Amino acid sequence: MAKQYPDDSTTLHTDAYELSMIQTYFEEGIQNKQAIFEVYFRDMPFKNGFAVFAGLEHIIHYIENLHFSKTDIEYLKEATDYSPELIQYLTDFKFKGTIRSVAEGELVYSNEPMLQVEGPLADCQLIETAVLNIVNYQTLIATKAARIRSVAGNDGIMEFGSRRAQEFDAAIWGTRAAYIGGFDATSNVRAGKIFGIPLSGTHAHSLVQTYGNDYDAFRAYAETHEDCVFLVDTYDTIKSGVPSAIRVANEMGDKINFLGVRIDSGDMAYLSKRVREQLDEAGYPDAKIYASNDLDEKTIMSLKMQRAKIDVWGVGTKLITAFDQPALGAVYKMVSIERNGKMEDTIKLSNNVEKVSTPGPKQVWRITKKDSGKSEGDYIALSSEDPRHQDELYMFHPNYTYINKTVTDFDARPILQTIYDQGRLVYQQPELADIKSRCSENLENLWPEYKRDLNPQKYPVDLSQKLWDNKMNLIKKVHEYVKKIDYDNK
Amino acid sequence: MAKQYPDDSTTLHTDAYELSMIQTYFEEGIQNKQAIFEVYFRDMPFKNGFAVFAGLEHIIHYIENLHFSKTDIEYLKEATDYSPELIQYLTDFKFKGTIRSVAEGELVYSNEPMLQVEGPLADCQLIETAVLNIVNYQTLIATKAARIRSVAGNDGIMEFGSRRAQEFDAAIWGTRAAYIGGFDATSNVRAGKIFGIPLSGTHAHSLVQTYGNDYDAFRAYAETHEDCVFLVDTYDTIKSGVPSAIRVANEMGDKINFLGVRIDSGDMAYLSKRVREQLDEAGYPDAKIYASNDLDEKTIMSLKMQRAKIDVWGVGTKLITAFDQPALGAVYKMVSIERNGKMEDTIKLSNNVEKVSTPGPKQVWRITKKDSGKSEGDYIALSSEDPRHQDELYMFHPNYTYINKTVTDFDARPILQTIYDQGRLVYQQPELADIKSRCSENLENLWPEYKRDLNPQKYPVDLSQKLWDNKMNLIKKVHEYVKKIDYDNK
Repeated sequence: MAKQYPDDSTTLHTDAYELSMIQTYFEEGIQNKQAIFEVYFRDMPFKNGFAVFAGLEHIIHYIENLHFSKTDIEYLKEATDYSPELIQYLTDFKFKGTIRSVAEGELVYSNEPMLQVEGPLADCQLIETAVLNIVNYQTLIATKAARIRSVAGNDGIMEFGSRRAQEFDAAIWGTRAAYIGGFDATSNVRAGKIFGIPLSGTHAHSLVQTYGNDYDAFRAYAETHEDCVFLVDTYDTIKSGVPSAIRVANEMGDKINFLGVRIDSGDMAYLSKRVREQLDEAGYPDAKIYASNDLDEKTIMSLKMQRAKIDVWGVGTKLITAFDQPALGAVYKMVSIERNGKMEDTIKLSNNVEKVSTPGPKQVWRITKKDSGKSEGDYIALSSEDPRHQDELYMFHPNYTYINKTVTDFDARPILQTIYDQGRLVYQQPELADIKSRCSENLENLWPEYKRDLNPQKYPVDLSQKLWDNKMNLIKKVHEYVKKIDYDNK
Repeated sequence: MAKQYPDDSTTLHTDAYELSMIQTYFEEGIQNKQAIFEVYFRDMPFKNGFAVFAGLEHIIHYIENLHFSKTDIEYLKEATDYSPELIQYLTDFKFKGTIRSVAEGELVYSNEPMLQVEGPLADCQLIETAVLNIVNYQTLIATKAARIRSVAGNDGIMEFGSRRAQEFDAAIWGTRAAYIGGFDATSNVRAGKIFGIPLSGTHAHSLVQTYGNDYDAFRAYAETHEDCVFLVDTYDTIKSGVPSAIRVANEMGDKINFLGVRIDSGDMAYLSKRVREQLDEAGYPDAKIYASNDLDEKTIMSLKMQRAKIDVWGVGTKLITAFDQPALGAVYKMVSIERNGKMEDTIKLSNNVEKVSTPGPKQVWRITKKDSGKSEGDYIALSSEDPRHQDELYMFHPNYTYINKTVTDFDARPILQTIYDQGRLVYQQPELADIKSRCSENLENLWPEYKRDLNPQKYPVDLSQKLWDNKMNLIKKVHEYVKKIDYDNK
């Protein structure tokens, strides 16, 4: 093998620049300055009305194993010019940060912090890459899955995408995220083992090829399995596949549960109707039709509009890669830093108004009207504020401030929870089934206008007055700084 | 943690239906029937003229660790109704297959086998999912990287995408594939450690935010690093970032290598030209301009057309997710199976002519004209054929057979090599640097018409007469079978 060192640690799963900065901070003696970073994305994935947060389980797993292994240190000694003191610092490194995060299955929106990391500057910096790598992917897939669930209604939806996933981790964490977002089962046995997700899958075309004909293959399968779904399109769905499935079902009688047949190619709308007739005529009105073949929310909706007779959907490539938008652009921005012993808020400017970061550590409050139980919007405030003490809440658009409303009779729920307290795990991760239920309950509390697949209303994500004023102040300060530097250089 | 079992094995990284079929084969006593499967894709990724094969290293790693762990067996006992005999069979399982594959960095084309697995039916079936999962992603990324290399010319190109990759494995295997396809360096330190890929990366906006201004941040960085690239767009590239970088470079003099500045936002064409002027005027004509910001082959080409003054390109999201086509659709199809003690070729039919599989085990011969040294096309033949014994080669299009040519004075190189021989690793994986060089040499042997980014010529992938006749025969046989089944049912 061409490997340099064994892959026995994920602590170096970080961008080189994080370590370069840690080198500077350590040499300058400021590696323990307190800092606060926040994770958020700027644009809704798939232009959807909501996103489903996922990734916390993997983040916890990553943080629990966060220490530089012997081989990590060996590599760094060889590949860098780090001083013995820096090497010693890394060897002794233990994560001391505080992490606040929304729970998995919680709904999240653009430009609000989903996760906040507070702690020694070096600690915050080290974990940036891995945290984004995890959250960006898993939140994307959970959201895509929720979109597919919304068009599938109560039909069964199965995640079948491992072979097209972007390598191993995507296959298993992706299918877990899909389960959270509304899928019923996975084809990936390892994901079944690790996460307890129900498995789905019967046989491939190769079973039929092994026996050389549909009948012998289905018969062999039926002799060795109680629950049977036969894949009928190896040679000819209508003329050979379905008749052979029916013949085996007739012969085996009560010895099997003839659950149905799967179609993996051809014109799904036409074939499913013909197959339905064949099954009904043969006396199997309860046998279901499973379909799989590059499906996603668009094709499922189209097939439903065509009244295709499909009961269960196997979704692969388009879900597990988030094919129509394979990346969520969440970023990790510093919002506050210790200077002269006290915390100062910081900003990153940009020519593009949407890209200007919002300074200061925050809490996100989900505002619900007491009468309807539905979400009115999210209210982002400085961590020091608590809107539960207010009788009415003035909510305004952070860029178009003339769009505003006053909310009364509301409940405000803080959605960022403490996961790590100064390096110590204090959060009890819920069972996966509970995360999944939580996600569907959250969606029930959302007005349908925010949930539709196409052109949803924009869910309000507003800033508190204090937060907004703070941001405007910092923008002004930076403009003055830039002007001065520019003047000095002339 | 909500995990059921520790993630201590990747042997269950397979689709549930593979195990369901193995159950049938085992119960029917045919798990050791010999079978042959081949891996190929039907459409060129990105409509590119070639693809770059990658993934073998991970496949070898996966196969070397292929055995059911204690917890795998515990899970299967709990989750399935497997007989004690089947459980024992899996507990004792050792991979006995023969794997032939093209080398990493080799060019591959649609509808030709990149990988062939021959061995006991159960063994072949078990590894399908993982093999596809690996090859589909890594080949996709190596190909995307080669496209970006082709527009970047001799400029430096760096892989910066870890934070947007689809989970951890994609980040590290993806950056390795990018390196094979032509990238110079990675930002992922773990990939540097495991694979020996050169690292790239200096600092983030957060360094500037930590110090509160560009100058102090750059100065601190320069005090602690010899090689300096300063990120200049935290507050204002032209007015503050670049003047501060120049000031630090002037002050530090020979104490640092002022390599250049990086721009991560804004109008890259405009900014890079202004920054070039600033650097030149300050006496730093050799300082380079690094750019990063959702780049890919299209934006790089556009920036070059606009004569942007960018020397080094940091490419992230669009490469590591293969944003414009995030999945390669390679499939794993049975081409031959033992029946009554001898091997019989098998086919999978489809209404779509391109989707009909080509039966029989094959070798792919890369045909090169002796005079030019350039590839004339690929000649796919049955494993038993050897075109090196022929003076001339008749090559014809497999679907449009009237498109044909006769080649003389040629070299024929078989590109499928034996990696595993009946379960034993017999292949010495080359060093990564050699794989990378091999890729660029392979591209030199390809006519430019096949290499252009947009609308390349289709590289000929032709079948031998025997292979073609064999396919037509089997199609006929299946049609007769379907007709008979249909007739029997009427």
